[in-house]
Amino acid sequence: MTKHAAEHGSFSAKDYQDPPPAPLIDPVELGKWSFYRALIAEFIATLLFLYITVLTVIGYKSQTDDTKPGTDACGGVGILGIAWAFGGMIFVLVYCTAGISGGHINPAVTFGLFLARKVSLVRAIMYMVAQCLGAICGVGLVKLFQKSHYEQYGGGANTLAEGYKTRVGLGAEIIGTFVLVYTVFSATDPKRSARDSHVPVLAPLPIGFAVFMVHLATIPITGTGINPARSLGAAVIYNKDKAWDDQWIFWVGPFIGAAIAAFYHQFILRAGAVKALGSFRSNP
Amino acid sequence: MTKHAAEHGSFSAKDYQDPPPAPLIDPVELGKWSFYRALIAEFIATLLFLYITVLTVIGYKSQTDDTKPGTDACGGVGILGIAWAFGGMIFVLVYCTAGISGGHINPAVTFGLFLARKVSLVRAIMYMVAQCLGAICGVGLVKLFQKSHYEQYGGGANTLAEGYKTRVGLGAEIIGTFVLVYTVFSATDPKRSARDSHVPVLAPLPIGFAVFMVHLATIPITGTGINPARSLGAAVIYNKDKAWDDQWIFWVGPFIGAAIAAFYHQFILRAGAVKALGSFRSNP
Amino acid sequence: MTKHAAEHGSFSAKDYQDPPPAPLIDPVELGKWSFYRALIAEFIATLLFLYITVLTVIGYKSQTDDTKPGTDACGGVGILGIAWAFGGMIFVLVYCTAGISGGHINPAVTFGLFLARKVSLVRAIMYMVAQCLGAICGVGLVKLFQKSHYEQYGGGANTLAEGYKTRVGLGAEIIGTFVLVYTVFSATDPKRSARDSHVPVLAPLPIGFAVFMVHLATIPITGTGINPARSLGAAVIYNKDKAWDDQWIFWVGPFIGAAIAAFYHQFILRAGAVKALGSFRSNP
Amino acid sequence: MTKHAAEHGSFSAKDYQDPPPAPLIDPVELGKWSFYRALIAEFIATLLFLYITVLTVIGYKSQTDDTKPGTDACGGVGILGIAWAFGGMIFVLVYCTAGISGGHINPAVTFGLFLARKVSLVRAIMYMVAQCLGAICGVGLVKLFQKSHYEQYGGGANTLAEGYKTRVGLGAEIIGTFVLVYTVFSATDPKRSARDSHVPVLAPLPIGFAVFMVHLATIPITGTGINPARSLGAAVIYNKDKAWDDQWIFWVGPFIGAAIAAFYHQFILRAGAVKALGSFRSNP
Repeated sequence: MTKHAAEHGSFSAKDYQDPPPAPLIDPVELGKWSFYRALIAEFIATLLFLYITVLTVIGYKSQTDDTKPGTDACGGVGILGIAWAFGGMIFVLVYCTAGISGGHINPAVTFGLFLARKVSLVRAIMYMVAQCLGAICGVGLVKLFQKSHYEQYGGGANTLAEGYKTRVGLGAEIIGTFVLVYTVFSATDPKRSARDSHVPVLAPLPIGFAVFMVHLATIPITGTGINPARSLGAAVIYNKDKAWDDQWIFWVGPFIGAAIAAFYHQFILRAGAVKALGSFRSNP
Repeated sequence: MTKHAAEHGSFSAKDYQDPPPAPLIDPVELGKWSFYRALIAEFIATLLFLYITVLTVIGYKSQTDDTKPGTDACGGVGILGIAWAFGGMIFVLVYCTAGISGGHINPAVTFGLFLARKVSLVRAIMYMVAQCLGAICGVGLVKLFQKSHYEQYGGGANTLAEGYKTRVGLGAEIIGTFVLVYTVFSATDPKRSARDSHVPVLAPLPIGFAVFMVHLATIPITGTGINPARSLGAAVIYNKDKAWDDQWIFWVGPFIGAAIAAFYHQFILRAGAVKALGSFRSNP
Repeated sequence: MTKHAAEHGSFSAKDYQDPPPAPLIDPVELGKWSFYRALIAEFIATLLFLYITVLTVIGYKSQTDDTKPGTDACGGVGILGIAWAFGGMIFVLVYCTAGISGGHINPAVTFGLFLARKVSLVRAIMYMVAQCLGAICGVGLVKLFQKSHYEQYGGGANTLAEGYKTRVGLGAEIIGTFVLVYTVFSATDPKRSARDSHVPVLAPLPIGFAVFMVHLATIPITGTGINPARSLGAAVIYNKDKAWDDQWIFWVGPFIGAAIAAFYHQFILRAGAVKALGSFRSNP
Repeated sequence: MTKHAAEHGSFSAKDYQDPPPAPLIDPVELGKWSFYRALIAEFIATLLFLYITVLTVIGYKSQTDDTKPGTDACGGVGILGIAWAFGGMIFVLVYCTAGISGGHINPAVTFGLFLARKVSLVRAIMYMVAQCLGAICGVGLVKLFQKSHYEQYGGGANTLAEGYKTRVGLGAEIIGTFVLVYTVFSATDPKRSARDSHVPVLAPLPIGFAVFMVHLATIPITGTGINPARSLGAAVIYNKDKAWDDQWIFWVGPFIGAAIAAFYHQFILRAGAVKALGSFRSNP
């Protein structure tokens, strides 16, 4: 918050260790139980994420349905409640899985961390597969539980809202995912914990809040994806044309957003660009 | 959040100590004042939990009652406010009682920790009795304060909502309790504090949020139990057939959910299964 | 959360220090600038607390006024927003003033801490005077800013809602203040920080949440006082009969609640009773 | 929370270090990459802040527009959701940028820290320029994405609401900014981390909550500025007379509020006045 802190942005490198870049393929990790355990944790976490959030979305729409007798326009949890469901679950699940799998629960986060060479290619691909399977199963559970409500109230699928152009939806997904992945990078920076005594690292809370904020802003535009597994899971189970037609937006947007966040963090904030160019000296 | 952290999932066992399994009956604890103090703390905490939350539910229904003049559909705290009341009270009370009794405030949590051999059988049973008595007294206080409102607005009792099948209600309780007990295990893992410098352990906050999230999702289905003491207390004081007919759901569901969470944490995430089978080596 | 933690409730006394009881009159503190600074901090904090919260209450009522054209029943922040305003301000202000004055901002909290001999009598009285003056000035500022709205929408004064008996209002204030002061004691227990590595002490957050929770539950009954300075400030500036007639409830209730909380914490949870009676041995 | 803590307000100076006052012009910092990186971080953070918050405001107004068919008075996130968007984004962004730029994201905060000599004059001016440019770009993005909605629903511009006098709006901005900047000073006090073991420094969370609280209270009066960059950015892109006529309020108010907070913290709370006058001895 002060120049004092800012001045020390260019701290000597001795008090923290940047882990070396992850290899593309790391045969050692494939032989460890901890790798498979991480896949299970990602699968279960994404399943729970979609189960709770899609159930909240369906419940909200059912409660505010004017065509049903006895419903009440204000009876549901509101869009604010839906935004809390997404953000709050990410807080809880990142907290629970951070020590097991790193707590990605989102292919875009995995992609960003892969670009920054924090996870191996094999791990990144396997995580994404686990996340997508988890998301499909989570939405499947909701449908299993309440088939008629599920179909009637849109299945929690992400689609571009009427009246918005494709480029707007794409832009909203790019910037939204940027906010999330930028927060993830800031929260897990090894340089950070070494340096900032006045900003203790509570990683999961700001990450959950970032998801909450993006939902407040972009639910009216795309329903808010910023998580390709979430969008895929809902589309597979809902399985309507509109959800499939717009699906690419919820993969291309988040991946672009995550890539920009990885670039911003590694090259601008971590001064990677400077080190590469040699034009400034960060630690004179 | 990174492979770095994940890689260290298989950390050497030297830097933390797993406490030994609790005995089924521990005669020493019965002679300590701290044991009885813990029972009192569980009783008072569950009493306050039910008092605040049921009062919020009654207040909400009274404010949105269309049949009363001068009420306003949007005047109450909303379902979002009710979900906050449950989640927020658990945050506050776990925070307050964690150092005294471990902060269970829920027979399902006690059951899960007993299965994982974290509490003795005697302690588990006595805690459940204290929690159930506390819950009954808490709801009793609400009825004492506002008898007519209490009867009129359903007494905060958990029942299966119209249109939902029994298996759906049971499933919702199982998964909801799984989310809660899984978070409890993650938050109190002794391995965790030794390992994760970047995920400081704020146990009560994610536990409270887990309760908040489950309420957002399942209030429309069962009113959300995930706490047999809460369901029992409301049923005893409300004492209508419907509340008693569905009561078993709110005991069987949470106990199954807690058991699965205990199994998942101890055997999958803590690699108990692996150690038992000897087929992988966690620390090669 | 576990028996492990609970077992250590009866920890050896060596790893923390209970400060000695505060004297009734401490002449040394009267000669220190830090004492007067603490009074200023309590004054300013209570002023800001009342200013923000009463402004929120007035704004809410103005926005939902059906008699005004162009208003919208759902346009305001809702009772949920009001509850957040009270709880959130306490979080922020306790955080800001904890290191200066201890962050009481409430005569009932000061009274509870005095009973537990954590503050001297002189300090307790002076704090209460500063809090009451601050509250009056805070509400005065709101009236200065928007006189007509202020009169029209009830001035944020605490009164017993129609249809509730006096004993109900008193009971609600007693239990509500108990929840708050119990949280304050739990959060500031010196034994706690020495013992619980898995429950780091984030004192201001659970204290703020306790206030938030009590408001969710009891706004429909009394408007929620649990803070005599808040009730007095609003009554002085609003100055209508009803607010004065009920004023005693908002002093007697909170003081009884705080006294019970102090007793509960010191004698039950801290085993003061046991030490006094000698019937059990806490550290056998 | 106790006298114990308060007594130690006058702690010996040995256990913390007050950084020396920042020079007005610090040529060394101009040669460091970390300085320019901090400007980029402030630019991006303010851009994201305005993008998310103005999008939320527009979405809320669109959803509650009675003149559109199919809208629903309760469909939007509500004023509570808007207040969360502002407060939550500040929490996330201060968390993300604290280690890079100090996390100001607000010219009033920069001004307050400059007055307290925590940042150099050059850094203060450059930060404000970066913040204003970021805000303009952030609102510009929203307009680019949804031009018709943007114009129709007021563009998120700050104006004095009908029926309020100028002095009221100015007063609301002064006190609101005081709450924010006072929290910033409290959260980043170097004396604090040395002294308070029971109040760990979670700076970004109370800062975000302070913003949330002020929005709850003053959205009905001015739409809540307390951040000149936010008000300027919205005015530049919306570009209507009313937004420009009232613009001065949103610069003069916040700067006065920040100045009072800096004075209050440095001279009253940090006993600067006492040291200057020599009339009391803080450490007798």
